[in-house]
Amino acid sequence: MQQRNVLRKIVVFCLIGTCVALTLAALAQAQIQDPLPSWNEGPAKQAIVSFVQKIMDKSNPAYVPPEERIATFDQDGTLWVEHPMYTQVMFCLDRVPAVVKAKPELAQVEPFKTVLSGNREAMEKLSMQDLEKILAATLTGMLVDEFQAEVKKWFETARDPRWKRPYTELTYLPMLEVLKYLGANGFKTYIVTGGGQDFVRVYSERVYGIPPEQVVGSAGATKYGYGKDGKPFLTKEPKLLLNDNFAGKVEGIHLMIGRRPYAAFGNSPGDREMLEYTGAGSGARLMMLVLHDDAKREYAYGPAEGLPDTKVGTFSQALLDEAKKRGWVVISMKNDWKRIFAFEQ
Amino acid sequence: MQQRNVLRKIVVFCLIGTCVALTLAALAQAQIQDPLPSWNEGPAKQAIVSFVQKIMDKSNPAYVPPEERIATFDQDGTLWVEHPMYTQVMFCLDRVPAVVKAKPELAQVEPFKTVLSGNREAMEKLSMQDLEKILAATLTGMLVDEFQAEVKKWFETARDPRWKRPYTELTYLPMLEVLKYLGANGFKTYIVTGGGQDFVRVYSERVYGIPPEQVVGSAGATKYGYGKDGKPFLTKEPKLLLNDNFAGKVEGIHLMIGRRPYAAFGNSPGDREMLEYTGAGSGARLMMLVLHDDAKREYAYGPAEGLPDTKVGTFSQALLDEAKKRGWVVISMKNDWKRIFAFEQ
Repeated sequence: MQQRNVLRKIVVFCLIGTCVALTLAALAQAQIQDPLPSWNEGPAKQAIVSFVQKIMDKSNPAYVPPEERIATFDQDGTLWVEHPMYTQVMFCLDRVPAVVKAKPELAQVEPFKTVLSGNREAMEKLSMQDLEKILAATLTGMLVDEFQAEVKKWFETARDPRWKRPYTELTYLPMLEVLKYLGANGFKTYIVTGGGQDFVRVYSERVYGIPPEQVVGSAGATKYGYGKDGKPFLTKEPKLLLNDNFAGKVEGIHLMIGRRPYAAFGNSPGDREMLEYTGAGSGARLMMLVLHDDAKREYAYGPAEGLPDTKVGTFSQALLDEAKKRGWVVISMKNDWKRIFAFEQ
Repeated sequence: MQQRNVLRKIVVFCLIGTCVALTLAALAQAQIQDPLPSWNEGPAKQAIVSFVQKIMDKSNPAYVPPEERIATFDQDGTLWVEHPMYTQVMFCLDRVPAVVKAKPELAQVEPFKTVLSGNREAMEKLSMQDLEKILAATLTGMLVDEFQAEVKKWFETARDPRWKRPYTELTYLPMLEVLKYLGANGFKTYIVTGGGQDFVRVYSERVYGIPPEQVVGSAGATKYGYGKDGKPFLTKEPKLLLNDNFAGKVEGIHLMIGRRPYAAFGNSPGDREMLEYTGAGSGARLMMLVLHDDAKREYAYGPAEGLPDTKVGTFSQALLDEAKKRGWVVISMKNDWKRIFAFEQ
């Protein structure tokens, strides 16, 4: 009897052990299989996964050959934080003292005078025209190599006012997962941004895993010339070649990629045409818009859904209405994202 | 004795068999290992192979990480035949009747009148300004989708006057081998052409294995608009954004790629700046120029080396002098290429 009891115990023990092992294996498998662990289960996550499954399935009429798998992502407000102000504008404002040092006559000229005063309230009242003057003075006129070095250096020390972290840490973890997931499934992922192409290309590879040649942005002309040593260089000219916003995003995609995307992600009216053009293609297409509705973990702004209307980044009611009409999927940061930043615990 | 003889014969037979097998295996191995079988042994082939070995070798200071491996190729005269006239100009001339049909008033206007006459001698005398008028009329004003369909259709029936073959068969086999060899070693290969970006992108993937997003060419603006059905489309506008020749090639590389190439291939003064810019980078760089010195198998034109001076594609003496000074490798079609076209026996 005692022997039989021991045997029974051993059998039970083995059975439990097997169950535990199987459960652990299943959990591990599930974790491996979930390409979007920072997303809550819901229609947004489901839309991404089912789109990828569809276009990867050779037996599905929506199958897309690898070379045609192009996905485009707006940057500000879609891949990283755009509040309280676009990161590139922060860079430009920080560059003003150096510009004035090189051209002292600007110190008494607006809008440079206001920026030098450091008065945030006055700076927030600067007009679009003022900002354009600052952008032109801080983004053009120098060598391409010098500009790239300056941007790189700035990112090393600049800190976001709210989280006190490098701006490059303010990327959305769920979107980084989407970039990786699409990349793993044969997509070439592109940033298509209203921001400056030369600016974003400095950090795109390190931050997003997106090489410079897959960054389409607002782009100025450059001019080829020679230094005193006879070495050739490129200078950034104050002439806009591509204003990569609204219809300009589609024109930029045609210029730089030459193919219609199968997936497009944005967050504001400047992305509308990109999503519309993507959706006008045949077969399965994925169009998504990030809605900033999480004041606690990030920011909340609309004015869609009665969210506050802000100057920087908007999600208009008209855009939301169009999204509903056309089947574009709205991502609620509050409900769809389990975690927003990699640095969160 | 007879048995011994038989044995000896068997041994000899086996030895010969082994030798033959080993020799065949060695030959097969050599063939597998030669990535450039259409190149004769010589300094040009050697330059390509030793460049690739150097930048692939992690223990070499000239090692280049995969993501930075960019190689750029001019098209006309470098990847395919450009005589007696650039293929795209042939397309434009062939399109004139359709353009005149849509706008009958052009039939009596020069240069369209001359083109319609079919008089080759008169057509060869057309000025650069005349050609530009023809290019503008045949390359702009239509939908991007319509243009792509027209180009595709034209290539199906158009034949080169000398070989009576589709233009897309007039690619240089040795250069296709270089594209493949560099691609197999982690390079992103780009076409950087003075020709139209939208034109070349139609066939680049099929003909060169180069996807449309890796074609940089002269590019016009496009305009986003809507059809009567509300569907969005792009129209080709008569506004040049990028004249991808001379310094424009470097500016185009910066705009579309954003990295300095490690290897650049050309054949005429329009490629000079691209090679100069490539060579101005640090580490090992490969700059090569195709010299058309084979009147029998292809064409012979200079005027460098006393070759005939022609209107289409030139290799000036100044370019040859600069190549020698800077260590750019000149490829002699006559001496360096064992075979020029895939269709040759």
